[in-house]
Amino acid sequence: MNYDVVGLGQCCIDYLGSVDQYPDIDEKEEVNNLTVQGGGPVATAMVTLSRLGASTAFIGKISDDSFGDLIKDGLISEHVNIDYIVIEKGKRSQFAFIVIEKETGKRTVLWSSATVTPLVAEEINRDVIDSAKVLLLDGLMKDISIVAAEYARDAGVKVVVDAGSMREGALALVHLSDYFIASDDFARQFFHADDPKAAAIELLALGAKTVIVTLGEKGSICLTPERYFYQPAFKVKAVDTTGCGDVFHGAFIFGLLQKWDLNETIRFASATAALKCREIGGRTAIPVLKEVEELLENDNSF
Amino acid sequence: MNYDVVGLGQCCIDYLGSVDQYPDIDEKEEVNNLTVQGGGPVATAMVTLSRLGASTAFIGKISDDSFGDLIKDGLISEHVNIDYIVIEKGKRSQFAFIVIEKETGKRTVLWSSATVTPLVAEEINRDVIDSAKVLLLDGLMKDISIVAAEYARDAGVKVVVDAGSMREGALALVHLSDYFIASDDFARQFFHADDPKAAAIELLALGAKTVIVTLGEKGSICLTPERYFYQPAFKVKAVDTTGCGDVFHGAFIFGLLQKWDLNETIRFASATAALKCREIGGRTAIPVLKEVEELLENDNSF
Repeated sequence: MNYDVVGLGQCCIDYLGSVDQYPDIDEKEEVNNLTVQGGGPVATAMVTLSRLGASTAFIGKISDDSFGDLIKDGLISEHVNIDYIVIEKGKRSQFAFIVIEKETGKRTVLWSSATVTPLVAEEINRDVIDSAKVLLLDGLMKDISIVAAEYARDAGVKVVVDAGSMREGALALVHLSDYFIASDDFARQFFHADDPKAAAIELLALGAKTVIVTLGEKGSICLTPERYFYQPAFKVKAVDTTGCGDVFHGAFIFGLLQKWDLNETIRFASATAALKCREIGGRTAIPVLKEVEELLENDNSF
Repeated sequence: MNYDVVGLGQCCIDYLGSVDQYPDIDEKEEVNNLTVQGGGPVATAMVTLSRLGASTAFIGKISDDSFGDLIKDGLISEHVNIDYIVIEKGKRSQFAFIVIEKETGKRTVLWSSATVTPLVAEEINRDVIDSAKVLLLDGLMKDISIVAAEYARDAGVKVVVDAGSMREGALALVHLSDYFIASDDFARQFFHADDPKAAAIELLALGAKTVIVTLGEKGSICLTPERYFYQPAFKVKAVDTTGCGDVFHGAFIFGLLQKWDLNETIRFASATAALKCREIGGRTAIPVLKEVEELLENDNSF
């Protein structure tokens, strides 16, 4: 079967809860509103695309533990195809416990990595990538991401890279990407200075066709060989920013599928990401298309 | 079927992991050696009894969520009977995330309470209590614990109460208990001063037949109308003290089943609890009988 978008990357299960006050060491603190939901940059972007109306498949590797089962359930319930997920038995899937302090909204993340072996070329299905319109990669699984990006390039599939933090894997994908979306953390670590535009220029020089740097509540910048522009963030009361970037990436790809121009695509992605922050959890408040359209229509600020 | 010991109380699922350093708010920290295992004072005491060789059944209430499934699995795998556990669908079972700092061994507990309704008399099986030799209760489910204690008293079943922290439920059980085992926290809160012996005298006056106060690494004291004595703790390198008290309670009941005298019973319980602390998790290192016997034989300190 063909999918609009195929994503390959990490996935995990997030346990999120709020506390009155983040506890000191050696204390006990009650967690309220405990929420269990799937996470991982690419997986959450696929859920976003699915809610907006695109067809998606996720490629990744998990184990057959209870975390793995929850990860699968979280994708199935969102109509993200999971036929290409590889399951390695008897290991542990990735997990994160995210503590959100009610008053400050500050998040503390305790995470535990998966114990599965890295995904290798023999385990992935080339056809599902070749037949997609867009491939999304994170920089977290270097070798297999390069393989997938090369498949996509050869098949004329657009490659979007989500570079969340400075890692070898993300850098190795710059020249294979059509759209390289870096977080401000990545840009700062890559450029060794807090200058997103300069970082974008450098990334473009390395072979990216379009570079976007997301700046959280400060918005984002976009640079291509022809143009440069800034997109402010939408103002929302952010209850929880978990997965905000992931949702931006998914919504950005939705704009690409609609063949909107870059300005419109990034404005749409910003609005979608802003709506996500209304509730606790990376996925709870991911909007459907109509909600994003309403926000965009009612917004006169720019 | 008849069981040596029936336990009624809270049960939960614990996620435990160690960190190099307990993270400040707004930080990300990797958790190592993530361990998922059942917890809860009475449930872990039943597992202890089962490992030592007694037959046990646990009565409690959980939901049909993934936490509930893990709680059940953790008891089944330890041969604790779960036929009398009540499952309320569509709710959340109790959960705790326990972060252990490697160097200091300090534990920070983030816990989330169950959303199931309280267990009521109509939901429990009187026969299984009446036919046991010993009933163990925690003070966490007041009303149903009183009902169960009265069943036990009428049937001549010995009642052991685990009073971990000062709650109405634990106090209401004092006069119904044959053995009232208070933590030092409970004793301090109950007596409004750090004087475990004075607290024990007061508890005896309230109707307990035997009072024990556990003092962690400082050992424990025991008071009956006829005698008073002190039992030092066994020296071990404590990797994790989670569940240490619960294991003490289980092993104490094992001594009662053998009809050992109180000194011997408490020394046995101390040794069992000490061995538990060798590994991360409330249950991982709970010893089998032979291991406790070896520690007791090799110990010449008292």
